This record gives sequence, structure tokens and C-alpha cells, in this order.
Amino acid sequence: MPHSENPFLLQLFLIFILAKLLGEVFERLSLSAVLGEILAGVVFGPFALAWVKTDATIFSLAELGAIFLLFTVGLETHPEELIRVGQKALGVALAGVLVPFVLGFGFMMFRYGHAQEATFVAAAMVATSVGITARVLGDMKVLPTRAAKIILGAAVFDDILAMILLAVVSGLGSAGGVQWLHLGILAAEAIAFALFMIFLAPRLVHRMRPRLEQMSVPDAPLIASLALCLGLSVAAEKIGIAAIIGAFFAGLAFAEYSPQWNLQPRVHAINELLAPFFFFTMGARLDVSVFTGDVLVSAVVVAVLAILSKVVGCGLPVLREGWPIALRVGVGMMPRGEVGLIVALVGLNLGVISQSSYAIVIFMTAVTTMLAPPLLRVLFRRESESATE
Amino acid sequence: MPHSENPFLLQLFLIFILAKLLGEVFERLSLSAVLGEILAGVVFGPFALAWVKTDATIFSLAELGAIFLLFTVGLETHPEELIRVGQKALGVALAGVLVPFVLGFGFMMFRYGHAQEATFVAAAMVATSVGITARVLGDMKVLPTRAAKIILGAAVFDDILAMILLAVVSGLGSAGGVQWLHLGILAAEAIAFALFMIFLAPRLVHRMRPRLEQMSVPDAPLIASLALCLGLSVAAEKIGIAAIIGAFFAGLAFAEYSPQWNLQPRVHAINELLAPFFFFTMGARLDVSVFTGDVLVSAVVVAVLAILSKVVGCGLPVLREGWPIALRVGVGMMPRGEVGLIVALVGLNLGVISQSSYAIVIFMTAVTTMLAPPLLRVLFRRESESATE
Repeated sequence: MPHSENPFLLQLFLIFILAKLLGEVFERLSLSAVLGEILAGVVFGPFALAWVKTDATIFSLAELGAIFLLFTVGLETHPEELIRVGQKALGVALAGVLVPFVLGFGFMMFRYGHAQEATFVAAAMVATSVGITARVLGDMKVLPTRAAKIILGAAVFDDILAMILLAVVSGLGSAGGVQWLHLGILAAEAIAFALFMIFLAPRLVHRMRPRLEQMSVPDAPLIASLALCLGLSVAAEKIGIAAIIGAFFAGLAFAEYSPQWNLQPRVHAINELLAPFFFFTMGARLDVSVFTGDVLVSAVVVAVLAILSKVVGCGLPVLREGWPIALRVGVGMMPRGEVGLIVALVGLNLGVISQSSYAIVIFMTAVTTMLAPPLLRVLFRRESESATE
Repeated sequence: MPHSENPFLLQLFLIFILAKLLGEVFERLSLSAVLGEILAGVVFGPFALAWVKTDATIFSLAELGAIFLLFTVGLETHPEELIRVGQKALGVALAGVLVPFVLGFGFMMFRYGHAQEATFVAAAMVATSVGITARVLGDMKVLPTRAAKIILGAAVFDDILAMILLAVVSGLGSAGGVQWLHLGILAAEAIAFALFMIFLAPRLVHRMRPRLEQMSVPDAPLIASLALCLGLSVAAEKIGIAAIIGAFFAGLAFAEYSPQWNLQPRVHAINELLAPFFFFTMGARLDVSVFTGDVLVSAVVVAVLAILSKVVGCGLPVLREGWPIALRVGVGMMPRGEVGLIVALVGLNLGVISQSSYAIVIFMTAVTTMLAPPLLRVLFRRESESATE
């Protein structure tokens, strides 16, 4: 037969439909649709029912899904609003990196006594994965609230701080030691990139506007924004921060003209197609069978510390604005994701952490990822009701 | 570093920006943007400058691109319009399959004298690749014209006819011979699938409408349409016809409610992101260096026959509607694509055709693909002007 059977399309269809079906079920139970999509990955992924294989192509689509998720969020965020919460956000990010690291390091040293292992597990507890929070807040239509802005601003700082910390830790683990000069250059690049994107890029889009609207290709503004989204994702990774932060900046640059060019609903459609692959593969990574008694105890403690340290660390700097905002910001910064997993994997490959520490990190990631959506729904309920009224 | 360098995103960005830039240049030269995107693949693809590697993930994205291209076209096509041109379209498809096959077989027998080789090359000349035509007509906003409807209807029949013919040819090439019973079942399945999708599926969507609009997940109609698009692409391949025909049917089923649910502009945005990968990889397949003198002569003759046979074969059945429509339909059915390449590859793998016959088929595909866009622009110019006025 000329059209040979193609497993790729079937996998795609299964992931999409399973994620969306469980999302609908969870939404009806007044839980979060995201949680349903993640659980679809746990249940139907390779470690449980194995209906679906998550191969390299699916992971690439998942990555694109995360990128377009943050791009949409950027399109709904005005740079000035981010600048307004800048100082608060920096405080939230700083405390949100320090507190988890100190608590994680302390517990792992106390329990296992290996400094290097403790450093890696603690470092994996540091980086917030803002994708989940952004999706939940977007679904609830509360992205314009002050708490949401602080979370988004802090996520940018958090990624830069985490990048620096993780570079230090990786340096400690490798033979060459920490290369402080190289690290300084990296940090300076990341900060310059962020400042440029927040302060100058929106003005450049403003200037290019007449030219974009005169181009011969139809839909030039949409195409330019998609190109910038892909380009800045690549640039962010080159600099050493997460691709999704680059995509967020791309959205930010086009935010002012998003209504006029009708960008948001159209990019959101791309998002609807690709995001399920991101959330499904997040769940598909969890192998429940690695947890034996002793490992499970440590894993639960680390997960609890991971939750408390972000809620307290990120909540404290904004406590003056009242309990509700502090709690929302703290819980919003709670989910950990790919970055933590990558740190653990680096540690495993360097031979400085054990298989059980790796399992602990995976467990911590899964718990913080899955608890955030329902908690955020409760905390933002009132805002959501007044926003959708 | 935790964020290791990721070649995938860089490849994606390069393909997107190169395709769109050459598209813009070609648009300004009053040629077709599609042609620019295909040429970007030829020039920057692995056989020439090799700036870009087209790996399995890129090919998967390209396939998704073709699927969403035909899905968008389906969303703009009303089933009744397709039914109205049904008989004409069947005639166009039948003659458009027979004439190229007979001419191709005749020439190859005359020149090389191998019946099996001639059969495979002739079979590769049969299947129309409607993606390119659909994109050009969509860009020119002439999809609602009668000629466009005939082309789309004929493309559906063409795919079913080509599937049957190619199954026969593959059977002749393999040890077991043609399995007529199996083939009859396949053909019946494909025809039943097409009839169901054109006559009944739109009514099912109509019935499901209240339920879709009441679902808890936001954007349920869009999500349902995306799920159907992926699902029918899988179903079409299972039956033995092209995935893109399934995607076209999915669009058809939702066409009636597309304006109400605002589907078309949002699916079109997905298209804007993914289609460049399809056109770029089409160009990236062309290795210009395989053509030596003798092969080139045969390749040029086969390409000319491929053009004339479709223009004449597909034009004749609609000649009564006047020259302009006959010519538009003929040229619209001209491009050959993946199916022809797959047939040639099957022949190569079975050892029944030579490397030079394989090169001839690739050349024929490239020429018909690249000539169609500028010709279509000339032929549809008047309609396009009155449509965009």
C-alpha cells in the first residue's frame, strides 16, 4: 500500500483526545482541566496502561506546547504592568530561590549526609515551572490581577536566578569546578536580554508596525509574531535561560497590538492544539513503581518542604499586601517542572546522586505540579467570578 | 548547564523564517508565496546549502502542516457545493487518472522497454497532490469559485482512484500478486467513508451542537473540531487513503458552523505556523545533482507528459463549461506530491525500478509542484480581483 500505517498520527490523536476527555471530566468535578490532562499522561502513559508511546516527536510537540502557552500569556501581559510589580517580583523570586534551597539542602544532609547529593536535590527544588500556573490563571481569566502579574514577573527573575544557581551547582559537580567569569558573563547576558525585551522590544514593534501592515504576505503581523516567538525561544536557550521565557518576552513585545491584529484568539488556537501534549507528557514521566518505603518517606518530606518553602518564601515578600495576595503568589510559584528534572538527570549522569534521589525529585515535581491547579482555583475563585460576570 | 542546547527549536526557527522570507520575496515579484517556501527548501535544504536538517520531527510537523491545510480548506467548503459538482468531479478524476497513466506507461515502454518499471513510473504520475493548489486558491480567496469546487471534489475521487490503482500496481510488483478481494474491500471502505463524511457527518455535527456549546471546557467546538481532524486523518490512513483527505472531511463536517464558532481564522493560525514546514520539506527533497544528461532528457519528457496529461485529462470532462474553467481545473489538478514519491520508493525497495527512474519521478513531482502556483495565479487572476475588491 502506498499509504503505509503511520503510528505518529495515531499517537497524536490518542494523546489529544485522552487529555481533553479527562480535562472535561475534571472540569465538571470543579477540579482543574489541567490536572485531568496531566493525569491522562500518568494513567495512559508508558509507565501505566501504556496506550501511548511518548517518543522524541511527541516531546518536541510538548516543548512547542509550553512555548506557545507562555507566548499567549505574554500577549495578555502589558510590559508596564510587569515593570510596576518589578521590585516585588524580584523579592518574591529571591526568597523563592533561597528558602527551598536551604530547606532542601538541610533535610538531605540531615538524612543522608552527602553534601553533593544534597546540593543537587536542593537545586532541583529551586526553579518554578510557570506553565501550569499560567494555564490555570488563563483558564480562570484572572491574568489581569495583581497577584498574577507578580507571579509572572517573579517567574522571569526566578528563571534567571535558577540559571545562575544551577550553573554553580553543575560546576561544583564537574571536574573543572565553578567558572566564575563564565558564569558572570552568562548572568549579565540573561539580565541584559530581559531588560531589553521588557523595556525596548515593545517600542521596536511599535516602530515596525507600518511596515508589517504593508507587507505583501497576508497575515504579516501574525507571522512576524510567530517568527519572533520561535526566534526568542532559541535565543533564550542560547543565553542559558528557558525557551519559554523567550516566548513570554515575544508575547510581551506584541501585547500592545494584540487586540488590533487579533493575535490572542488565533495564537490561543495554536495553544489549544499543542498544550495537551505538554501536560500529557508531564504526567507520562511519572513512574509510580520506583517508590519503596524508605524512598517514599523522604520523597514525601521533600515534597512537603518544596511546597512550604515556596509558599512561605514567595509569600513573605508580599505579605504587606495582605494574606490573600501572599498566599496566591506563594501557591502560584509552587509548581516545579522540567528544570528540576533536568538538574536531577545531570546529577544522575555525573554520578553524584543516586537513583533514589532521582526518584525523590520526580515525586516532588509531580506533587507540586498536581497540587497547584486545585489550590489556585480555590484561592482565585472570587476574582474569577467577578472577571467572568 | 541545565538548559542544554536544543537543535530542534533552532531548526524550526530557521525553516519558518527562511520559508516566510522567500515567500514574501516571491509575493512581491507577483509570483506565488508557496513557490518561495518550496524554493527555500531546495536552496537551504540538505541537498544544497544544508543550513537546515530535515529530521523525523520536522517531517512529522510537515505532515501536520498538510493536514491542517486541508482542514482549513474543508472548513471553507460546504458539503452541498461539493455534491453539486459531484458528477463533473468524478469525470475529472477518472480521466485525470487514466490519461497520465497511459501516456506515462507508453513513453517509458518506448524508451526503456521494461513493463514493470513503466508501470511504476506511470502510477507515480497519477495522484494529484491537492495541498499546493488549495493553498494558492486560498491565498487568492477564490475557493468559492466553481472551478475550485470541481478541483476539490475531483481531489477526493482522485485519491480513492489512485489508492485502487496503486494497490493494483504494488500487487503486480510483489510476490503474492494482486489480491482482488482485499482490494475490493479497501475500495468499498474508502467509498463508504467518503459518502458518510459528505452526506451524514455534517448532520451529526448539527445534532451535537447544543451539547458542544454546553461543555465545561472552554472552546469546546474548536477542540472537538481539532480532535475530529486528527481522528479522521488516522481513520483515512487506516482505510488506505491519504490522511489529508480525512482532514478535509473533518473540515467539511464543521463548515456550516465555522462562522458561528469562529473556527476558520483560528484554524488558519495553526496553518500559518505549520504549513511552512510542509512546503519547505517538499523542496528539501529535491537533490539536483542526480540528473545526468540521459536521465534529464527522460525526466523532462515525463514531466511534460505529466503536465499535459492532467491538463488535458482533467480539462476535457469540463470543456463544456468553457475554456477558462477547463484550463483552471486542469492546472489545479497538475501538482503531484508525496504519493508519487512513495510509489517510486516502493518500486525502488522492491527492486523493480532503477535509481534513474526514481530520479525521474522526483523531477516530475518537483516540476509539476513548482509550475502550478504561478500558472494558477494567472488563470484565477480575474476572479481573485473581483473577490478581494
